[in-house]
Amino acid sequence: MVKAPCPAPVLWLTGLSGAGKSTIAACVNAALRSRGTDTEYLDGDVVRSIAAGGFSRAERDAHIRRVGFFASRFADHGITVICALISPYAESRAYVRGLCDRFVEIYLSTPLAECERRDPKGLYARARRGEIAQFTGIDDPYEPPDRPEVTIDTSRTSCDDAVSIVLAAWEARLRQAR
Amino acid sequence: MVKAPCPAPVLWLTGLSGAGKSTIAACVNAALRSRGTDTEYLDGDVVRSIAAGGFSRAERDAHIRRVGFFASRFADHGITVICALISPYAESRAYVRGLCDRFVEIYLSTPLAECERRDPKGLYARARRGEIAQFTGIDDPYEPPDRPEVTIDTSRTSCDDAVSIVLAAWEARLRQAR
Repeated sequence: MVKAPCPAPVLWLTGLSGAGKSTIAACVNAALRSRGTDTEYLDGDVVRSIAAGGFSRAERDAHIRRVGFFASRFADHGITVICALISPYAESRAYVRGLCDRFVEIYLSTPLAECERRDPKGLYARARRGEIAQFTGIDDPYEPPDRPEVTIDTSRTSCDDAVSIVLAAWEARLRQAR
Repeated sequence: MVKAPCPAPVLWLTGLSGAGKSTIAACVNAALRSRGTDTEYLDGDVVRSIAAGGFSRAERDAHIRRVGFFASRFADHGITVICALISPYAESRAYVRGLCDRFVEIYLSTPLAECERRDPKGLYARARRGEIAQFTGIDDPYEPPDRPEVTIDTSRTSCDDAVSIVLAAWEARLRQAR
């Protein structure tokens, strides 16, 4: 695997559950690896599965900050990091941006109605029935990024096109100074 | 920086506060890097500073499991990882061992009386005064490893010798099959 120039970019996918973060992240990861680029894919759900944490604001913030910290450490080794986390709060995303020299914020702006229609894990239905509390978009806020490097609405952009857009942003960020 | 054969070893230093974990870890890290070995040093206190967590058994376990998870991810990229955490519970250390293909448990067996005499951060004094609760060795348990790869009592072994012992264990672990 070939390392990117140090530090490597951190591709941070943020958006509602069902917006397409994991799908696009997995495809971007595969595409970069097929080019021989050393990558690390950090999925919020996978990291949560290691040590369960709750969904209060403080617990979500801690989760995002930790993943961001480790992402920045990987990036400093020249490893491109792809992170897929709802990461609903602007403040904690700004914290992570501050840690990473080449941060690329990718906002999946897929509308709530479309995410709820997809409901790949059945979580929206459970949240609507009141079986899950603090569910982003239902009874917990999502603060859209002010100035993301990339915005993609997956209800109007195909996965292939989304992947191409993210890869182009990755290349552009590599060319820029730190 | 040169990568070790994949997966790289994870050098896990466990022991009481004041046992010498951070001191030895920093010296091992510097020695490996001076040889051109790509390393990542994960200090428990630094990781905790990113997102404060408590010291209950559940919170300590979560901390150890998370650091172990990320350590195993770095190791899979050929990056030698040096972890310095009190990590007082045998169960969570066993969990981390299971995640890492080349795990080297380094038990700093420095006696409590010596750690308390050193008290580099003044924490034992505060714990004895009752200002800190759940302090390992005082009112929280430390479960010594059953079969650590390395045991070092820093009240009887110099830092230089300790570093040489850890480096020898690192090389030995590299030579062994996964």
